[in-house]
Amino acid sequence: MSADEFRRHGHALVDWVADYWESLSRRPVRPAEPPGAVAARLPAAPPEAGDGFAGLLDDLDRVVLPGMTHWQHPGFLAYFPANTSGPSVLGDLVAAGLGVQGMLWATGPACTEVETVMLDWLATLLDLPERFRSTSRGGGVIQDSASSAALVATLAGLHRAGGGRWRTSGVAAGRFTVYTSTQGHSSIEKAARIAGLGDAAVRLVDVDPATLAMRPAALREALAADVAAGARPAVVVATIGTTSTTAVDPLPEIGAICREYGVWLHVDAAYAGAAAVCPELRWSHAGVELADSYCFDPHKWLLTGFDCDAFWVADREELVSALTVMPEYLRNAATEAGAVLDYRDWGVPLGRRFRALKLWFVLRWYGAEGLRAHIRAGVALAQRFASHVAADDRFEIVAPHPFSLVCFRLTAGDAVSQALLERVNADGRFYLTHTRVDGAYVLRMAVGSPRTTESDIDALWSLLSGAATDLLR
Amino acid sequence: MSADEFRRHGHALVDWVADYWESLSRRPVRPAEPPGAVAARLPAAPPEAGDGFAGLLDDLDRVVLPGMTHWQHPGFLAYFPANTSGPSVLGDLVAAGLGVQGMLWATGPACTEVETVMLDWLATLLDLPERFRSTSRGGGVIQDSASSAALVATLAGLHRAGGGRWRTSGVAAGRFTVYTSTQGHSSIEKAARIAGLGDAAVRLVDVDPATLAMRPAALREALAADVAAGARPAVVVATIGTTSTTAVDPLPEIGAICREYGVWLHVDAAYAGAAAVCPELRWSHAGVELADSYCFDPHKWLLTGFDCDAFWVADREELVSALTVMPEYLRNAATEAGAVLDYRDWGVPLGRRFRALKLWFVLRWYGAEGLRAHIRAGVALAQRFASHVAADDRFEIVAPHPFSLVCFRLTAGDAVSQALLERVNADGRFYLTHTRVDGAYVLRMAVGSPRTTESDIDALWSLLSGAATDLLR
Repeated sequence: MSADEFRRHGHALVDWVADYWESLSRRPVRPAEPPGAVAARLPAAPPEAGDGFAGLLDDLDRVVLPGMTHWQHPGFLAYFPANTSGPSVLGDLVAAGLGVQGMLWATGPACTEVETVMLDWLATLLDLPERFRSTSRGGGVIQDSASSAALVATLAGLHRAGGGRWRTSGVAAGRFTVYTSTQGHSSIEKAARIAGLGDAAVRLVDVDPATLAMRPAALREALAADVAAGARPAVVVATIGTTSTTAVDPLPEIGAICREYGVWLHVDAAYAGAAAVCPELRWSHAGVELADSYCFDPHKWLLTGFDCDAFWVADREELVSALTVMPEYLRNAATEAGAVLDYRDWGVPLGRRFRALKLWFVLRWYGAEGLRAHIRAGVALAQRFASHVAADDRFEIVAPHPFSLVCFRLTAGDAVSQALLERVNADGRFYLTHTRVDGAYVLRMAVGSPRTTESDIDALWSLLSGAATDLLR
Repeated sequence: MSADEFRRHGHALVDWVADYWESLSRRPVRPAEPPGAVAARLPAAPPEAGDGFAGLLDDLDRVVLPGMTHWQHPGFLAYFPANTSGPSVLGDLVAAGLGVQGMLWATGPACTEVETVMLDWLATLLDLPERFRSTSRGGGVIQDSASSAALVATLAGLHRAGGGRWRTSGVAAGRFTVYTSTQGHSSIEKAARIAGLGDAAVRLVDVDPATLAMRPAALREALAADVAAGARPAVVVATIGTTSTTAVDPLPEIGAICREYGVWLHVDAAYAGAAAVCPELRWSHAGVELADSYCFDPHKWLLTGFDCDAFWVADREELVSALTVMPEYLRNAATEAGAVLDYRDWGVPLGRRFRALKLWFVLRWYGAEGLRAHIRAGVALAQRFASHVAADDRFEIVAPHPFSLVCFRLTAGDAVSQALLERVNADGRFYLTHTRVDGAYVLRMAVGSPRTTESDIDALWSLLSGAATDLLR
């Protein structure tokens, strides 16, 4: 592809993306097609000769869009939304064009250093403790997801709990155990499985029935029982903003218990961490200074495209010591001088993209003010929705909702609540998901898109309310 | 950012990328700056107010470019190159704009199905066995890197070797072992460490001194000794194109031994897999039908931007069974009907980008013909370089070079060979790296960029030859 062809096709595709975004509110948020429909529109084999993108834009419209779940749609209120933005897309474009692979500082000094500075900037933005900064003994790194962050934290915790023998002998030497609440994310169980502990090593600690937050006393009991039985607690994962309901585990108490037991404390704030850009929401992060590691996903609620999980450790040497492997072909003068960070030793994959560019673009485009305004708008929309729900006695709100997720149900029970979700999603304007709280079927409404407006929220409520009337008739 | 602002900035950044590519041959391939120089050009804190990208293009030139190792430079002949292309960058642009997160089929039908079809297309392009296709019992998926592919293969091997108990009980129940050659990639050792086996569980099998390929007899001995000692062999990783020298392990013999022992065979063709687009290079893949899993990196030598590792399994159910975890909030009708692939169960992270788009763009732009021409050009340039080296009796070629990597040294020894590498890299036009072969210091020259020409190769040789004359004086 010549430079001129790249310019021409590039401009056309930038415009295609802008057109796509402008079209979103006119599209159904989810596709109506059955499995296999997209695949059936593609040829069975690759072309023998290149076709110079003949019909490419048409094919994006014809093949891809009818099979899209539109995550950037104003009515996407499912899971935790993952919203990108213009600046993020443009940062990714530059990163793709530079095509640098920053596995070592030496293979990408700018890739490495911009990442270090952006993670320090984010730490400032969230008012994270000084110990997580690169200027202290800690530092931040971009992981693909909070799943990988949980895995890396688990490995660092095993390295510590194994007293230096884990790298060589693995986990067979000790009965290592892992702790999170019953509301902790499934990635914690998956991390324990990957790390060779097996699902049986995971302790799901009981929660307070009203707040759904981990009960510190229950954590202490679990730790004490395991230690008494000869197990070695390796990592406790506390959550700020659980996936089901955005419960906030009490970090001050949990952190104190972890210190007492010498256990690695990882804090998973995948979704709600972004809220800490607002001073009035930083109560959720009380006690974070007790964590050994902490992560949140700018790709969820901070206008940065997936993938971008920001992960910090308080002691970078402990992490690097757990993960480093040094073959001859990666040896280089900068690494051996000890003067640089080599991010390959901070995660699973060796190769790394220049993901910090999109953070740089997002932070300079919006500024701290713009990001706070975005979070506040999401919280306000969720509160508006919650007010509608609370004012209708056919509904109940089932958990605290300090951020932008509201969990609710029909008091008439599970079957009708499930039917309500199906009815609302079938309409096409909105996409909500569900969870279970204490066994009960619950609907989740999570705001994330900067495109979602008050009138969207009111229209959703009107749809829900009308559907409830039909279903309860 | 309004749609108009996105168009305007997007067009400018597309042009900036095109200008950057056109400028590459005039830039030194590596930066001259010491550690910390890039960071020092960035403010210490994020801006309070957004600045609308004031000075953005200037800042890319001023802050980032002086700290770049230019992986897309025609003189980048280091490591294994990782070359992107115009179509790949544009595919990534569309993926970033769509912002879909394809963890489940339901959260991105097009994201999932295009990926499945593109991996089938790649399997056709490489003439991989039918059993790896989604139309059979296998299937392909994109991992971020061959490191993650090695980890996933290790986990699947443990699941099989553990006889169904690994998911629950982990690796403590058995003394599991892992095998690769002394030339296998460091990610295999790292995968064993992550999986809780510890470095001591990794057996580095002896190689043939001439070819540096794994000796099947040595593998058999290692397996037999471990089994006799009560260990459970979990995975053998054979390599097509080792990192040091592109040695090709003999898959037919290795595969037969793995079947005999019931051990998972993973084939790591991270770099050299791309060569299989050319029928005349498919001898390297003889025996691949015996593999349980196979991977190669389109992001290395197939004009697709990092990250894009293509990973296949022969039995997808075995992989999914190893990795699946199903919390309530991810349950959905399509998954429960068993009619779809949910790629979250094929790797470590839950969330997933639409990386298949860049593959689609690359395959339709170049076609099979264009990709074969790219591989053949790289092989021809490496052979041209090897001819120069072979004709100069101060130098020796230290390993077979069937692909685009040539390993060579000065016969005068390690110190002068190392000095030669430093001298050549200091020139700024080329970047080569080193390895050790049987203890000896060896230079590596790896072609990957479509921008590298015969005159580059001749200029490199002229530089090497002249530097050798100086050093040997």
